This record gives sequence, C-alpha cells and structure tokens, in this order.
Amino acid sequence: MSNFDADLSRNTANFAALTPLDFIARAAAVYGDNLAVVYGALRRNWRDTYARTRRLASALARAGVVRGDVVATLMPNTPAMIEAHFGVPMAGAVLSALNTRLDTSTMIYMLRHSQAKVLVLDAEFVAHAMEIAQACPALKLIVDAVPGTAATAQPDGWKDYEDFLDGGDPEYAWLRPTDEWEAIALNYTSGTTGQPKGVVLHHRGACLSALSIVVDWDLPRHPVYLWTLPLFHCNGWSCAWAVAARAGVNVCLRRVDANAILDLIQAERVTHYCGAPIVHAMLADTIEARHDSWRRDTAHRVHAMVAGAAPSPTLIGRLDALGFELTHAYGLTETYGPAAICAPHASWTALDAAERTAKTARQGVAYQLQLGMSVRDPETLELVPADGATIGELMFRGNLCMKGYLRNPEATQKALKDGWFHTGDLAVTMPDGYVQIKDRNKDIIISGGENISSIDVENALYQHPAVGAVAVVAMPDEKWGEVPCAFVETRPGAAVSAAELIDHCRTRLAGFKMPKAIWFSELPKTSTGKIQKNELRAIVAAMQSARPDKPRLEPAM
Amino acid sequence: MSNFDADLSRNTANFAALTPLDFIARAAAVYGDNLAVVYGALRRNWRDTYARTRRLASALARAGVVRGDVVATLMPNTPAMIEAHFGVPMAGAVLSALNTRLDTSTMIYMLRHSQAKVLVLDAEFVAHAMEIAQACPALKLIVDAVPGTAATAQPDGWKDYEDFLDGGDPEYAWLRPTDEWEAIALNYTSGTTGQPKGVVLHHRGACLSALSIVVDWDLPRHPVYLWTLPLFHCNGWSCAWAVAARAGVNVCLRRVDANAILDLIQAERVTHYCGAPIVHAMLADTIEARHDSWRRDTAHRVHAMVAGAAPSPTLIGRLDALGFELTHAYGLTETYGPAAICAPHASWTALDAAERTAKTARQGVAYQLQLGMSVRDPETLELVPADGATIGELMFRGNLCMKGYLRNPEATQKALKDGWFHTGDLAVTMPDGYVQIKDRNKDIIISGGENISSIDVENALYQHPAVGAVAVVAMPDEKWGEVPCAFVETRPGAAVSAAELIDHCRTRLAGFKMPKAIWFSELPKTSTGKIQKNELRAIVAAMQSARPDKPRLEPAM
Repeated sequence: MSNFDADLSRNTANFAALTPLDFIARAAAVYGDNLAVVYGALRRNWRDTYARTRRLASALARAGVVRGDVVATLMPNTPAMIEAHFGVPMAGAVLSALNTRLDTSTMIYMLRHSQAKVLVLDAEFVAHAMEIAQACPALKLIVDAVPGTAATAQPDGWKDYEDFLDGGDPEYAWLRPTDEWEAIALNYTSGTTGQPKGVVLHHRGACLSALSIVVDWDLPRHPVYLWTLPLFHCNGWSCAWAVAARAGVNVCLRRVDANAILDLIQAERVTHYCGAPIVHAMLADTIEARHDSWRRDTAHRVHAMVAGAAPSPTLIGRLDALGFELTHAYGLTETYGPAAICAPHASWTALDAAERTAKTARQGVAYQLQLGMSVRDPETLELVPADGATIGELMFRGNLCMKGYLRNPEATQKALKDGWFHTGDLAVTMPDGYVQIKDRNKDIIISGGENISSIDVENALYQHPAVGAVAVVAMPDEKWGEVPCAFVETRPGAAVSAAELIDHCRTRLAGFKMPKAIWFSELPKTSTGKIQKNELRAIVAAMQSARPDKPRLEPAM
Repeated sequence: MSNFDADLSRNTANFAALTPLDFIARAAAVYGDNLAVVYGALRRNWRDTYARTRRLASALARAGVVRGDVVATLMPNTPAMIEAHFGVPMAGAVLSALNTRLDTSTMIYMLRHSQAKVLVLDAEFVAHAMEIAQACPALKLIVDAVPGTAATAQPDGWKDYEDFLDGGDPEYAWLRPTDEWEAIALNYTSGTTGQPKGVVLHHRGACLSALSIVVDWDLPRHPVYLWTLPLFHCNGWSCAWAVAARAGVNVCLRRVDANAILDLIQAERVTHYCGAPIVHAMLADTIEARHDSWRRDTAHRVHAMVAGAAPSPTLIGRLDALGFELTHAYGLTETYGPAAICAPHASWTALDAAERTAKTARQGVAYQLQLGMSVRDPETLELVPADGATIGELMFRGNLCMKGYLRNPEATQKALKDGWFHTGDLAVTMPDGYVQIKDRNKDIIISGGENISSIDVENALYQHPAVGAVAVVAMPDEKWGEVPCAFVETRPGAAVSAAELIDHCRTRLAGFKMPKAIWFSELPKTSTGKIQKNELRAIVAAMQSARPDKPRLEPAM
C-alpha cells in the first residue's frame, strides 16, 4: 500500500455515487422557481416537478416496488414521462420505457422478459394495456389521463396517475444508488432481427452521458428544450437528465407534427431540439412550403441535434440554409444514445456550403466523456489507416457503454468482446481522425468483389430535389453477385422518373455503384424514423422468387 | 444478486477510470491544430503540447519514477507548469506543485514530507533549489531555463528541462490510473498555524472538478484563459484540466502585473481569468486610473471568476461597472479549489446595483458535481434554519472532497468526521438557500456575548472610496471581552482619517459592531492574496502587552 492509499479511503464525506438524480434535486434547490415543464397550458416549475417525482418514488415504494424492480412506461413525451425518468429510479427501480409504436405482442414480450412490476401508461394506450393486463396478470397498471377526458376512464383496479401521486410523500427521502454501477434504465433495441434485446444502463453512465451532452452540445443554463425526440428512445438521448442538469424547460409534445413544432418553437422560444433525420427533413419541408416566413419570424437561434441515422449532406445543407445551428451526433441504444459527435471547427465556416456539409455529415469523434471510438478490423482489432477508404468496424469503449443485455450473456459477451463494444457499423477514418459510417454490417453491398456503401448511393440520390427519402439495399444479381437497388420516396408534389435519377447519378457515382433498379414507394420506417431496410430486402427477395409484374419497379438500365 | 447484476460486470469495453488526462488526449486528437499555449512570442498547439507531456511522462519513467512517486514543481505559470499537470500524472506520479513564494525551509519540509523524487523548477528559483538540493540529496532536479538566459545555468548533475524532454518518447503509452481513486495531486495548505498539511486529490475528483468548472462557469469551447491565478494554488482551481477539456488557450503569465494583464486581455482577446479579490481589485484600480480608455477599447466580453477569499460587495460592484462578467465561487484546497458557486438568477438583473452585488457576494450553492453543501451545528450536525442569521459551520460532502491529508490520519478524521468535510468557515443560510460566509471559525469576534462577523465590518469599510484593503480582527477588551480592530490600506493617492471612517460606519453598522480602533498600514498577504490575519493578531497582541506609542494606531473612540 502506497502512502497515497494509507488512511485515505472513501467515505460519505468524500465519495458519492454518480447519478443524474442529483441534477433534479439541485435544479429544485437552486432554480426552484424556474420553469421545468410546459405542456399546452400547463406550466410547472422545478420545485413542484421535484416534489412530484418524490411523490412518485414514494408511492411506488408504498406499492411494493423495491430496489432492482422494473417499472415500465408506455407514454408519449408528456410531463408524466419526464417525471418517470426521475421518480422511478428514485424508488431504486429500473425504468423500462417502451416504444409506444410497437405491436402489443412485442410489448408483452418485453414486460415479461424484464419481469416488470408496474406499468405507467398514458390513457391513449388503454387498448394496448387491456391486452397487456390479460397477458401479465401480476402487473400493476397506472394510467395518466389524457387532459380533457374523464380521470375514471381506466378499468377497475387500475390506478389513476394523479391519485397515485397524491398517495406519495413530496418530502420522500429517495433512494440513492448504493453503487453507481446500479441499473437505472432498461431500453429494448428495436430488434429488426430476432427478439429485442434489453440494454441495461447504469447511474454512472447516465450521469456522464448527460454531462457529455451538456459539454459537447454546449448546452447553456436554462435551455428551452422541445421534446420532438421520443423519451422512450434511449431516454431521449439522455436529455431527460441533461435538461435537469441545466435547469432548462421541457416543452412536452404528444406527437410529432411539423406545424405544431414550428409554432411551439416560436411561441415558447425553443432553443434546442433533437431528432432523427426524418424529423428535421419534415420541418425543412414545412418551412420551405411556408415560403420562408417562418424563418423570417424566428429571430432566436435554434440548435438542432441530428442522430439516429446518418443525415445526408443534402439535408444538412437545407437545415443550414434555414438557419438552424445543426449538430450531428451518433450512437446506439447500447451507448446511451449518441456517444460521438461531429465536433465543429471554426475553420469550416470558411469552406463553401458543399464542403462544409460534407464535413458535418461525418459521425466525428467520441463524446468528451466516452474514452474511445475507433474503426478497426473486427478480427485482428487493428486500427484501419486514416485514409478515408479502408473500411472497418466502428467500436466504442468507455463509460458510455451499457452494462450488457439483460439475461443474455452470450449476446453481451459478443457485443463487448475484446474490450470494445462492437457497433456493427462499417466505417472509415478520415485523415483528420473523424469517423464516417459507410454502412451497417448487413447493409453493405458487395458487387463484383467491390464494397458499395449504400449510404454513398443514397447521398447521391438525396441531391436530387425531387427525392424526399431514399434507401438502397442489395439485390441479388447473377453476374455481379449483388447490385444496388434504390427505393425512393418523392417529396410532396414532386415527380421524377427512374431514368432521370439514373442520369442524375451518372456524374456523382462510379459505374459499379450505380443503382440497377429504382422503386418508387413510401418507405417503411421505425417509430424513430429509421428506414426499415429489412422490409425492403424482403420485398426484393419476394420479387426475385415470384417474378411478379413488378408494377412500380422501374428497371434502371 | 439481482437480474441487473448477473453477467453484467465491468470490463474494459464499458468502464474506464475517470481522469482529466483524457482531456488532453482528446484535445490533441480533435483540435490538434488549435492553439494550446501562448507565452510571450511562443505559440504551441494541442498536438505539440500533448506530445511534450508524453515526452515528459516517458522521461520521468526512464528516470525511475514509478506509480505513486511524487514529482514536485517550483514554477510560476509557464508552459512547463501546464505540461507538468499532465506529464507528471501520465507517468503514474503525483504532482506536488509548491507555492513559489514560500520560504525555503517550508519547501524543504514539504519535499521531505511528501518524499518527492523529482523537482522540476523554473530557473528563477535556482537559489532556493541550491539550498533544497543540500537538504534533500536524493532529489533529482530539472531546471526550465528562463527564456533569454543560458540553458546551462543550472549546477552540475541537474537536468535541463528541454534536454530532459528530448530524452522522452512523444508516442509514450502513458499510464492510466488503475483506479480513479488514485492520487493525482498533493497540495499543501498554506498552514497559517502549525505545519502545512498535504491535501491528497484523486483522478476522479480532478476530472469532476474540471467538468464542474466547465458547467458551472459555462466555459465555452475554445476559451482564451489567462493564467492570473497561480497553478500551484489547487492546480489553478482545476482550470489546468478544464481548459484542456474545452481545447482552450492557456495564456501563460510569469508574474501578476496589472498593466501587463490588461494588455494581454486586449492583445490575446482573453475571455476568462480567475483570481483572489486582491487581483481583481488591482485590475479595477488600474483600469480606473487609465480613465476608462481600457474599457472602451475592449469590445469582447471578459469573464472573471473570484474566489480564495470573500469579495466585498464594493469590489463586485466596481467590476460590474467596469463591464466584467463576474462569477463568485468558493472552496478550499481540500475541495479542489472552488466547489461552490453563487449561481446567477436572471431575476437579479432587475435589481438595483446594491441589491445585485449583495446577492453576488454570497458564496452560494454547491457546484453541479458536488453532492452537498450546508450550514450545520458542528456538534449536532443539525441544519441551521434558512434565516440569514443563525450561524453554523459550512460543510461539504461529495466527489469534490480530498482523499485526506497525507500521513496525517488524525487530521483527516477530524476534517471528514461524521460524513462531512468541515470547512472551519462560519456561515448562514439565506431564505433562498444560498450560503453566506460570516467568518473563519477563528476570526469571529465575540463582543459582550454578541458574535460580530469580521466580514460584515470589513464590507462596511470597503464602501468608503479611500479604502483599498481592510482586515478586521478581535482586540482584547476589559469590558467587552473582544472588540473589532480594523487595519486599513488606503487606495493609491487617497487619504482618510480614522474619525472619517468611523463616521462612515455609523450608518452602516450596529453600535456593537463598530471598529474600536483603526490602524493604517500595508496589509500582510499570502502569495494568493489572502490577508494574513494571524499576523495582524500578533500586532494587536504585541501592542496590548508592550503598550507602545502606537504611532500609526488611531483610537477610534
């Protein structure tokens, strides 16, 4: 034992488990009168919000919830959903926020897998919950009434959320984690293949993830944060806790509607919001359709964070032109949402718009508090050269990685093997050290021995003004093995032919990367706006086997 | 074992010890071309600065330094001092930055007590070091030459700093802490009574302290930070590491000179600086003497942090009027420097200047990442009521508290007893929860059974325009037990009589708080600008026993 360990141990004076729960206690103590939650006409300050979360924790404890129990939610971005992010872990429980857009059978799978004891749901989802209650008879149900409807709408035996809170103690001495490695959240991956996996996050990581957002996004004191991003998606990329850390305003939002969002940005002077590319594209469409008056009428700066899928340079350019301060981040459910950021450089402002958006479209570098992000050979773990060309697997390590998957040690070991979290994303490292994703592992198209990044083909198509959304997947081909097949969703009121798009691509893509078929269709998307390529692959496979008339498929060549 | 612990243990993929050393690695990787260090004509970017710190760590390791060894420094705020804050702990060693203004015998005490192996010193202090070398023959000495002097100025056997670095590997795989509780720094308290105590700080706390400064001071990306505050004072209040976290510019400064500082603020467009009240007062004096032209010529915002001693409301008002963005913080060597901040409220801007400065003069609330700060009865630990009147002892708990004092378990246990760090400062809690210090434990004046805060008396005197600095101590009194005695340093060119000051106080202080004697004199100060009240008390005691002619003491009544 060195001099520096003898008689110098941890104790309650000099050590405290890191937890984002401290953020709300401090917001209430220091900025108790400041606005915490806005929801329509509802205005609630941090003091009252903190008291409500303590009531929630106390009521859960009285209802029998103990340390390590799971409390699930089925709610949109309402005040109760914000409260759950504090009140549930304050009871020592683990928050499992279910994606409200899932089918009921998947929800039931998750609730059973997590052995959830309580489900707090919004009255909007009572129909789901009736089925859930039948399948999970031991589950306690608490219903948050939709304003304007009767509070007694819920079936017998279910609790009303406000009644439940009334039974709790606003001065409740909530449970700090006994160890910062204790679980705070359980977030199920969307599970495009196989059963969803339960990602276990801990207090330490949640605290550091929230702090990283504050530092990396330069989140100032008292931001006005609009909840466009679902809170059930990685706890709103840890913003549930980051907004409390800065004593900001949570502007709640039941559903994503472009006009409602733009109105709220003006009315509440929203300074920050997050979303997948599709949300930002929708806003850009709507602003452009308003003939720019919205932009002229909005004098304050609006900071937008985009992540969840790779934004095209075209989208970045549009948002830039509309005056949004855009930050591009990257991560996964396993990394508390974004754990990488395209950290900006002052020198980029001197670049022309195309160069600048190309820089910003990269996934960038690790968050301030994520130890490492690098692109490596998945077998040897050797770093790829920083040449912008050699593809490897993107890997993370550090405090912003999950504990693992719940009750799935094989998947945990596979994901965390060799001391790195394997993202499954294929990427290159640019000469300046910034990482750019080329594809999901399973999305890469191998054509005549060449790797084709589906994102490269998509970005070329996005440059056409008629293209609203696009997804490129591999199509089996006798000669080449695989060739790119593009699915295109046109922008409202726009029209374009496959031949025109092919022409458009000729100057933008090498010959072997050209899409060999273009399909016009609305694209299937997940609740978080990610295009579901597995469904598109199923369509391609069905076409190949059935050889139907392909009514909407236009052969490109 | 719950579901959430089974097969979900820590590993290198999902856990990393917190350390501020990661900040420089990231600054070099992401912002390698950005300016890191400015010193006169010297300009060095983060890539090169990081390479130099790795050379330093490597050279120390080659010189035999191993994990847990102490490397001391005796340097002003030069580039080498910045480098030591990273290079020394990168070798696994503990940095002990000595106060350069101490007498040599105290330095020798500290070097022996810490069993330091290496001393890195600035050539300015070679004379000290000659004595030190005699007293500590095993100590290795490395001298950083003062620019413009011969590099061979150091005695035989001593290493030249640049030569030493040349022997190190710029690609050195530096040692991460194996546990974030490992010591990173050893800072000796100034020790106004008894021997100095060695405060042991750890990597976790240093990382969280630096992050707290970033969040609580809203330190933006790329601040231009001027080193007015000695780095040997609590590692520059953790700013050594915080500036790296934000890839900022360290503007180095060999000595504090008001005109040089004001010139640097303009020339380098300095955005942030820290200092004790005396530094800010000196700048205010100088700006006022320049008849306001400096302020007119300085268009950019300058953020000033004041801590180290309680600033008077008068000083706060002057800085406010001069256009500085002032932040008032509070802490001790034991809490990594400041661990509390007078967190601002938007509503304060509507107050008149006197009310606003009164708010800002309070020590405030705990830092974002310090768990707790409260005023308690030191015996019962009961919280004092938030009445702004009941005095108790200010206490901290959380991650921003030292491990303890090196090889001094009794002092450690006393300081950290009952789960709180006892600051020894007497304070009240205001109705809004903000804490205001009334006195050091030993500074309180007990007069006729009433507690008199020496700070209250000082603040009243500071409101007189002729008063530059003031210190009030207890003077024994036959009738009252103790009465306040004021020592006053007038501002340059100003003159005032004791009678005038007494008159001035009459409307500002209760009768029992009035100073009963006023002494005009230059005040003895520590290297960090704190007035040494113990010396003033010695003068009072000497006067009392010797009853001399008291040539400069003017009896007030």
